[in-house]
Amino acid sequence: ARPRVGYFYAGKHTKNLIAEKIREIKVNDIKSVPVVVREDASVYDAIVTLFVEDVGTLFVVHEDGSLAGVISRKDLLKIAIGNADIRQIPVSVIMTRMPNLVTCNPEESAYDAARKIVVHQVDALPVVKTEEINGKVKYKVIGRITKTIITKLFVELGTI
Amino acid sequence: ARPRVGYFYAGKHTKNLIAEKIREIKVNDIKSVPVVVREDASVYDAIVTLFVEDVGTLFVVHEDGSLAGVISRKDLLKIAIGNADIRQIPVSVIMTRMPNLVTCNPEESAYDAARKIVVHQVDALPVVKTEEINGKVKYKVIGRITKTIITKLFVELGTI
Repeated sequence: ARPRVGYFYAGKHTKNLIAEKIREIKVNDIKSVPVVVREDASVYDAIVTLFVEDVGTLFVVHEDGSLAGVISRKDLLKIAIGNADIRQIPVSVIMTRMPNLVTCNPEESAYDAARKIVVHQVDALPVVKTEEINGKVKYKVIGRITKTIITKLFVELGTI
Repeated sequence: ARPRVGYFYAGKHTKNLIAEKIREIKVNDIKSVPVVVREDASVYDAIVTLFVEDVGTLFVVHEDGSLAGVISRKDLLKIAIGNADIRQIPVSVIMTRMPNLVTCNPEESAYDAARKIVVHQVDALPVVKTEEINGKVKYKVIGRITKTIITKLFVELGTI
């Protein structure tokens, strides 16, 4: 089920040139706005937000706005086909939570963010800034990087 | 909510060189195996297949194996939160069907496939070969191209 590797052929010089240019692109240059729900939002409300905002992944935030978790379409689908009352269950019950989240920061390269998406098999990464509040490290969500954004970037690279 | 365009800066020569190399990559070189369900499969069975095969999009095929439609996670989520009995409803009721499907062929460039994904806002394209059976044009599904594959390709391009 995996695509073959090594399908990209180019001279060593050209390959290095392309890789170098790609690594210059920063997360901050391509990030999109994050779509968030509060941790006490219901699963039903999260699904509505997913459709209204037309995204594939939602970020869940604490009351102070800091990152609490991530919810995928598959997380929502799994609970939706069960017998649970999705209007009563908060998203905090089904989300993937800190410290199991994969994040990226605005100064990272788009290449590193894309690599995290591939390695950790996720659709999207929250772009975060760390802040220390009352001695605790908090992650402020300032954007999102998705496979859609990387696909758009690939198209831009291929456009003359 | 859209990423800024024009974030990729390079000299004209370098940019053309990169674009040229990217356009040499063919769908056939990077396609993955398709995951298909029959059009009389239930929505419930489709959801199970989605999880078991670990994909985000399913292709629906006729009895003769030719392409009938495509189902996304959002199509499945929408019906799952309704009051319908998903074990009774066939996928053919909720799928996007021909001729509204966006497809690609193995000889197309990965660039063209990625552009279709972006323009038509889909997660995956069936890779098809056309066949004429009894005077009718049929689309045999021979692979899939997804945002995941394009993201992996982007990572490969950036790896020295």
